[in-house]
Amino acid sequence: MEVPRNQYIRPLLTDMYQLTMCYAYWKNNHHNDPAVFDAFFRKCPFKGEYAVFGGVSEIVELLKNFKFNEAEVDYIRFLMPHAEEEFFIYLASIDASQLKVWIVPDGTIVFPRINLIRVEGPLAIAQLCETTLLVLCNFASLITTNAARFRKAAGSDKHLSEFGTRRAQGTDGAMTASKYSYVGGFDSTSNLLAGMIHKIPTIGTHAHAYVVCYSGPKDLSTRIFKDIDLYDHADKYRKENNLKTNDGELAAFVSYAIAYPDKFLALVDTYDTLSSGVPNFICVALALNEVGHKAYGIRLDSGDLAYLSIESRKLFRQYAAKYSVDFDKLMIVASNDINEGVLRSLNIQGHEINAFGIGTNLVTCQAQPALGMVYKLVEVRNTPRIKISNEKDKITIPCQKKAFRLYGSDGIAICDIMSRSSDPEPEIGKKIMARSPLDEKKRMFVVPSKVEAINELFWDGQLVRDVPSLSESRDRLIAQLKSIRSDITRETNPTPYKVSLTSGLYDYMMYLWDMEVPIREFQ
Amino acid sequence: MEVPRNQYIRPLLTDMYQLTMCYAYWKNNHHNDPAVFDAFFRKCPFKGEYAVFGGVSEIVELLKNFKFNEAEVDYIRFLMPHAEEEFFIYLASIDASQLKVWIVPDGTIVFPRINLIRVEGPLAIAQLCETTLLVLCNFASLITTNAARFRKAAGSDKHLSEFGTRRAQGTDGAMTASKYSYVGGFDSTSNLLAGMIHKIPTIGTHAHAYVVCYSGPKDLSTRIFKDIDLYDHADKYRKENNLKTNDGELAAFVSYAIAYPDKFLALVDTYDTLSSGVPNFICVALALNEVGHKAYGIRLDSGDLAYLSIESRKLFRQYAAKYSVDFDKLMIVASNDINEGVLRSLNIQGHEINAFGIGTNLVTCQAQPALGMVYKLVEVRNTPRIKISNEKDKITIPCQKKAFRLYGSDGIAICDIMSRSSDPEPEIGKKIMARSPLDEKKRMFVVPSKVEAINELFWDGQLVRDVPSLSESRDRLIAQLKSIRSDITRETNPTPYKVSLTSGLYDYMMYLWDMEVPIREFQ
Repeated sequence: MEVPRNQYIRPLLTDMYQLTMCYAYWKNNHHNDPAVFDAFFRKCPFKGEYAVFGGVSEIVELLKNFKFNEAEVDYIRFLMPHAEEEFFIYLASIDASQLKVWIVPDGTIVFPRINLIRVEGPLAIAQLCETTLLVLCNFASLITTNAARFRKAAGSDKHLSEFGTRRAQGTDGAMTASKYSYVGGFDSTSNLLAGMIHKIPTIGTHAHAYVVCYSGPKDLSTRIFKDIDLYDHADKYRKENNLKTNDGELAAFVSYAIAYPDKFLALVDTYDTLSSGVPNFICVALALNEVGHKAYGIRLDSGDLAYLSIESRKLFRQYAAKYSVDFDKLMIVASNDINEGVLRSLNIQGHEINAFGIGTNLVTCQAQPALGMVYKLVEVRNTPRIKISNEKDKITIPCQKKAFRLYGSDGIAICDIMSRSSDPEPEIGKKIMARSPLDEKKRMFVVPSKVEAINELFWDGQLVRDVPSLSESRDRLIAQLKSIRSDITRETNPTPYKVSLTSGLYDYMMYLWDMEVPIREFQ
Repeated sequence: MEVPRNQYIRPLLTDMYQLTMCYAYWKNNHHNDPAVFDAFFRKCPFKGEYAVFGGVSEIVELLKNFKFNEAEVDYIRFLMPHAEEEFFIYLASIDASQLKVWIVPDGTIVFPRINLIRVEGPLAIAQLCETTLLVLCNFASLITTNAARFRKAAGSDKHLSEFGTRRAQGTDGAMTASKYSYVGGFDSTSNLLAGMIHKIPTIGTHAHAYVVCYSGPKDLSTRIFKDIDLYDHADKYRKENNLKTNDGELAAFVSYAIAYPDKFLALVDTYDTLSSGVPNFICVALALNEVGHKAYGIRLDSGDLAYLSIESRKLFRQYAAKYSVDFDKLMIVASNDINEGVLRSLNIQGHEINAFGIGTNLVTCQAQPALGMVYKLVEVRNTPRIKISNEKDKITIPCQKKAFRLYGSDGIAICDIMSRSSDPEPEIGKKIMARSPLDEKKRMFVVPSKVEAINELFWDGQLVRDVPSLSESRDRLIAQLKSIRSDITRETNPTPYKVSLTSGLYDYMMYLWDMEVPIREFQ
């Protein structure tokens, strides 16, 4: 199948200052210096203590296409009229063939300060990736985390569908949201383009417009289904029960049931949920039942969802009993402005909802619409580098380094630890000291029962490892959640997970810090 | 220039339910019924009382490309195995040649409930546009509004630059943010791809990595500039003034000044802003001055921006006086987590910042990341339709209708008014009653001095009006702001603008409401 791809994944989707730096590096003959950059975040989103990584496939697409085309070089020349022509020849020549890129696989639970991406290669080229790489994984990781939190709040037995396309931040915001909500644990999307490109299950019913389109039975051009007049039969139930429902709505439901006799899911709040929508649905469901088809259910899109779902279920039971039909499996779908808090509150109140369609709050990550992943130089010309800041939290951890997850004998993760690449790696059964990066008194010994490298080498001048499929990433997250203590992933006052450095790395960082910033003198 | 376009602007970027409805319409032979849809929002974003429209060019691109390709039809066939083959032949045949689309031009100040877009055409095709059309204008309008608010908070004399690419919600989120921030009143962007495609001015300096890359003068491969050793000369000033600044930072600034002798803008907070960054900048600026070049300024990226800007300016003045150089025009750029509130607070405190680089809070619209524009059927088969709801606010205003802005004799807008297309239009000097749509006691008489149609016909089977350029839209907004009372656009407790209906439309809406929903009976 021919599918559209995201043409905006271009190396030129970057901040001007990557380019101005690139020229200054080149001008000072530093562009080919070997460099190491780390991407990490400092604070978990959504007031939580974890995040879930996403974005590997987009990063790989960027690396594959990392080449300025002629139009782009022309534009850069226009922006930098003072630069030498040799610089533009250099720019036109670069690609990602000299880069090595380690990335955390999608669906991995990740924590602050751990280098989720490590890029090694010529300084100027590795620097040029910064912004593009961040835009590709910041939102993907954020939406995966958000979806995972919604899934946790809803419980594993509910069907969750992403319904947010119309409210997303642009077309790619919509596509990314659909894709990574699925990785985060959603079951389906209403976004057809995402369904086609990413092979995600799609679901959908009708909107209010469909109901509003019918004024009454006169607007039905087809009423006959399997030799019965479906409208008349539905209307018969309406009259028998003295229901004063909206005629147009009944006609709309009949026409929709004829189009989808086995998937008849009705939006019931166009006029009034309990006095019109649900009774009309039931009349049509009873009529369908006469000819051997089972209705699918209803969708609630306004009002008090807990109350309306409970009352709707009561009506289903009442009519099922009266007419001896089986309405036990009727689905109740809810979809009005649902967020994590609403899901938790519904669980506390009690409700009869089987499935949630979640839009705005999910896809725009309303509770926190950005993840602050950053990309920092940690080593250049084989010399570790540190960035100090007036804000302690903004200090970077120097050195080319590896990250490991250490597990206890119960299979639960104890901590993540970063070590210099040149240091010996943590070993199973061997005691190792783990130090907090910014608090000298926080340290502990760990004897790991399992040691796992957090990053994987995806790119070594070319793709060297298969990008996992969406469902593999989805399964990875489900497995990972079992290995992280539940007090770390809970909503209220979660416990921070331990992120640490080896003693060697910690000591080296402190040494570099003292070296770079002399003690200030006040007079 | 060959530029990438957004390949995700496809009619398939839609909710499944548009398609399920499309089939149900077709199945019931209603697909070609003439229909009218309105797009509008119910509540202004950011706790304000206005919004600014954006998205016309994307909507036009959608309409031009509104055709399912073979792969898309195949995918739909796979999703709907029960549908008749004739339906897919129909689907493959449709395009936007039978649609008429009125849209508010970009940069127009808009208010709740006014139909910002009106789509007329065959029911099924007009319905299919819903989701795609909304995703294209919801975020574009939101970001334009957000930018306009930032501009208002900063004042007209500050340079505002959009710096948010890395934190945006996907690549298209970034591109849309750069484009529509400019329409909303920003001066530039750091996003190069947006600069190239939309011809927006770009600016950028260097990042921390550039500074961190240099350990000291040994890392300078070029120190000579216009026959002087720029490092030695800068270092001379450092020694003269007994400054204990970071060596690597000084070397980095020297190398950057050699690359950009007339645009030397230094990021000064890598080690310590006031004890290292700013003094190092001044030493290099003094050295540059010796060979006839003026430094451009500094960028502050952490700490107390008001305080640091004031102290930096003092240092500029102190050294300018000591060495008799002109540092009056040095720019101070600030760029750390700035939002509307920070801008207002800085104004109150007093500061010396000339330019702001604004990222996350602008591009993700952190204060409210989604605008809730909706798309509703208001007339079908020449019969006006209404959608009632348990929530009064969700009731739609029926009828094919036009919207006008009525101005007073002072050139200031009095109200917006919607009337049925068949009604006589409001006229200059002629008294007209304006009624609140949902409050029967709120009504007034208006004698307009100027009457302006709010929507313009952009599409009549094809594009029939030029899409204004970005700078035309930007100018339009500036002009529009002068015609709206300032208490409506102010931040604190803004006054709601009056949005009204003609008596004819109001009465008809009330009649339809009573007709559709019988009074409920409780026992």
